[in-house]
Amino acid sequence: MGVKLKELAEVCGGELTGDGEIEIESAAPIETAETGQITFVANDKYLKYLETTAASAVVLSFKTDFERLPVIRHKDPYCAFAMILDSLYPEAEAPSEGVHPSAVVADSAVLGKGSSVGALSHVGDDSALGENCVVMPTVYIGRRVTIGNGCRFYPGVNILDDTKIGDNVILHSGTVIASDGFGYARHEKGIKKVKQVGWVEIGNDVEIGANVTVDRGALGPTRIGNSVKIDNLVQIAHNVDIGDYSIIVSQVGISGSTKLGKRVILAGQVGLVGHIEIGDDAQIGAQSGVGHSLDAGKIYLGTPARDIMKAKRIEACISRLPDLFKRVKEMEKRLGSD
Amino acid sequence: MGVKLKELAEVCGGELTGDGEIEIESAAPIETAETGQITFVANDKYLKYLETTAASAVVLSFKTDFERLPVIRHKDPYCAFAMILDSLYPEAEAPSEGVHPSAVVADSAVLGKGSSVGALSHVGDDSALGENCVVMPTVYIGRRVTIGNGCRFYPGVNILDDTKIGDNVILHSGTVIASDGFGYARHEKGIKKVKQVGWVEIGNDVEIGANVTVDRGALGPTRIGNSVKIDNLVQIAHNVDIGDYSIIVSQVGISGSTKLGKRVILAGQVGLVGHIEIGDDAQIGAQSGVGHSLDAGKIYLGTPARDIMKAKRIEACISRLPDLFKRVKEMEKRLGSD
Amino acid sequence: MGVKLKELAEVCGGELTGDGEIEIESAAPIETAETGQITFVANDKYLKYLETTAASAVVLSFKTDFERLPVIRHKDPYCAFAMILDSLYPEAEAPSEGVHPSAVVADSAVLGKGSSVGALSHVGDDSALGENCVVMPTVYIGRRVTIGNGCRFYPGVNILDDTKIGDNVILHSGTVIASDGFGYARHEKGIKKVKQVGWVEIGNDVEIGANVTVDRGALGPTRIGNSVKIDNLVQIAHNVDIGDYSIIVSQVGISGSTKLGKRVILAGQVGLVGHIEIGDDAQIGAQSGVGHSLDAGKIYLGTPARDIMKAKRIEACISRLPDLFKRVKEMEKRLGSD
Repeated sequence: MGVKLKELAEVCGGELTGDGEIEIESAAPIETAETGQITFVANDKYLKYLETTAASAVVLSFKTDFERLPVIRHKDPYCAFAMILDSLYPEAEAPSEGVHPSAVVADSAVLGKGSSVGALSHVGDDSALGENCVVMPTVYIGRRVTIGNGCRFYPGVNILDDTKIGDNVILHSGTVIASDGFGYARHEKGIKKVKQVGWVEIGNDVEIGANVTVDRGALGPTRIGNSVKIDNLVQIAHNVDIGDYSIIVSQVGISGSTKLGKRVILAGQVGLVGHIEIGDDAQIGAQSGVGHSLDAGKIYLGTPARDIMKAKRIEACISRLPDLFKRVKEMEKRLGSD
Repeated sequence: MGVKLKELAEVCGGELTGDGEIEIESAAPIETAETGQITFVANDKYLKYLETTAASAVVLSFKTDFERLPVIRHKDPYCAFAMILDSLYPEAEAPSEGVHPSAVVADSAVLGKGSSVGALSHVGDDSALGENCVVMPTVYIGRRVTIGNGCRFYPGVNILDDTKIGDNVILHSGTVIASDGFGYARHEKGIKKVKQVGWVEIGNDVEIGANVTVDRGALGPTRIGNSVKIDNLVQIAHNVDIGDYSIIVSQVGISGSTKLGKRVILAGQVGLVGHIEIGDDAQIGAQSGVGHSLDAGKIYLGTPARDIMKAKRIEACISRLPDLFKRVKEMEKRLGSD
Repeated sequence: MGVKLKELAEVCGGELTGDGEIEIESAAPIETAETGQITFVANDKYLKYLETTAASAVVLSFKTDFERLPVIRHKDPYCAFAMILDSLYPEAEAPSEGVHPSAVVADSAVLGKGSSVGALSHVGDDSALGENCVVMPTVYIGRRVTIGNGCRFYPGVNILDDTKIGDNVILHSGTVIASDGFGYARHEKGIKKVKQVGWVEIGNDVEIGANVTVDRGALGPTRIGNSVKIDNLVQIAHNVDIGDYSIIVSQVGISGSTKLGKRVILAGQVGLVGHIEIGDDAQIGAQSGVGHSLDAGKIYLGTPARDIMKAKRIEACISRLPDLFKRVKEMEKRLGSD
């Protein structure tokens, strides 16, 4: 049932030292790994467990000396370990092809070869799934939704009308795609809903976490580029445009019509106002509040978001404020009143 | 299939210049609009696209000079455009009246004329829907829930027992109404759950976004007034009371028993502690943290939330802190040690 | 139908003054309570309603003088009231034992005595529920999930494969247990998903609010200890470990591999980075941002989180910054330029 260690070294292109014939059955964290398991260290905080781990093998970078156990060395041990996991854990049992008898699928819906729709799921009129898609149980797919190949939608996902989804997209449980955006016009008689007539477009290789909300465009699309990764409980408002390879961590909120460049990273709980642009490769630290457009390639932090060096200087000053007040008072005393 | 431009001008009470006989088929953002489409400018940031837009017509305010295309002018172009959208996009195809065969509806539940319950939805004992309600597929409605006329509940909505909902209420996907509040009493043996025996009351013309949570009262109601608009991923705790026409933007959290006046606006990611009161027409800026009651009619910002003018003064001071530290050090040097 | 007041006094071990023979039918907030209802005051803010309440009886602490109505006095009136509620509101009608005909339950799934699975719910292969569990309608339970006795899962809960749940666990609507964590390895060709092969373990007597997300471990478990209480819209990342009796308020986010001690309290909207440890009994104030490990038994506040006394001193300094700038300018003027 296991895989030989030398095969795992090959899979990830790593350098093996020690007995490559041992069988590895599964993977585990370094603190709790047991015989037959492989583990890794990518964060130096965990090096302290190396001497005591009961794992049978470890994936390490070249810089760490360690000889007690068989080791696979790789310049990027985390990435190597990810490849090893793919070998050790082949795809979870796929549901059988076709539509579960309890699912409700419109006559006009089309399912590509190898795709399945699980129990108690719904696919609406004129929707089309590509090949090898897994729609797990209790998923809702509305009307005129188009879906590429190799997608996987977890239980409780809601994909509303007119959404366009690329290939190899993963949506986790409870996530809502194409809810109405928050659009109202005030007038003398109160608040009028502005009908949200746009849609959502999701590129290829996108993964979206659990209980995320992505609003449809007010007009035109809300757009999520290729290879974008979005964590749980994130809010993406109408007409937001997220560039390829961007990473959005948990509980971030992005307001309407804001545009992110490519490879942008937003850390947890960041908030962005609407109608701004974030340049390519910009990174924004956790809990920051962004009220205006930000330059490409820089790192920002804080509310309001500032260049991280400036933010840290200010932060250091704030820590020393009680002392500053004392120093000023002291000087005032020396200068006397007049 | 289109609508004549002059008819759209009439619909919104706008002033037409240019050819009113052209046919408008749909609406689009100014950057991407094409022939046959109408667009608008309400935010000056988008005026730069006016000269190049390929739209067939534009909705503008009176203050903008522009003659290249037919124009509908209105003192509130956003509101006018909202009315035009209603004309261009008549209601999405309504599901046929009645109950889908896969839905589970209690014998004791009552459905008004013109109401429908979609596939795989549930309506529990002694619940009653008014007329012309659309319960989309995969909605859960519990027991003794009363619902007015003209409501629309999107897929994945959960409405738990004893909720009372007015007319024309829209609930978006994944939203939970009447979950238990977070109520515990500590005692010697640990933490005791305080049974949550209240309910939720929602007024008329309320819209609540996706994946919102509204807890039932601990005792008595959690109350959401008329015409309140709530964005995605908002948390409303037990016994909160939200006044009419208030607007709650995405990811706001309101703690237990806090009371909002009328027309209060809470921007994104704001947090309010429990048992406080926010006066009518107060506005609270994004990410603010509110620890005590706030006056009516004022604008607040920051954590802790302060009058916005004071908050901005303080913010400006913080930006200049590194400079202030230098100035103080300089003075100390000049004064010498003693 | 009611319960005699003297019986309620007995139930909570309280001291009765006034007529114990009166019948109490239900409970209500002090502002709106009516004849036949009992109410309580645990927060001094509500003492002002004592003289005018129309309740028939009140639960109070010993320190409050009050004679107009029958009173049950208790050193912890909130806890006493919680016990009274249990008496006044016996368990909501339980669904009948067994599986609703519209539910989809795998042949290999096992249900203990007295357990029920509601309409349109799903229980996957090799899952096992203990005794007296209530799986309400539209719940998804995946494969190889093990569940103790006396659990209650509300509509729309999603429990994914391999989750282990103890006894008396309550999960509220829309909550997702065991979604994939946010794990990616960057490499030359882009971003590679790190397969999430761990699971989630939930102890006994845990309650988790609505629309919460708990990610499965990347490797090994994400662990929620006994008697942990989690509010709505909280994010628990992969391999987080939450100690017994901890309390996590709404909209908190806890990043991967962070470990909370016992009886930790995180107030609303707090954010914690990954790979840190929070000591037993630590408390962290609302909206705080925690970037490093924190000591046991202390109270922290702010972003970055500081000891609460220091945080409050700094906060007071910040409020006085505009004044400090004036004072420094004044001194500079007096010192003159040179």
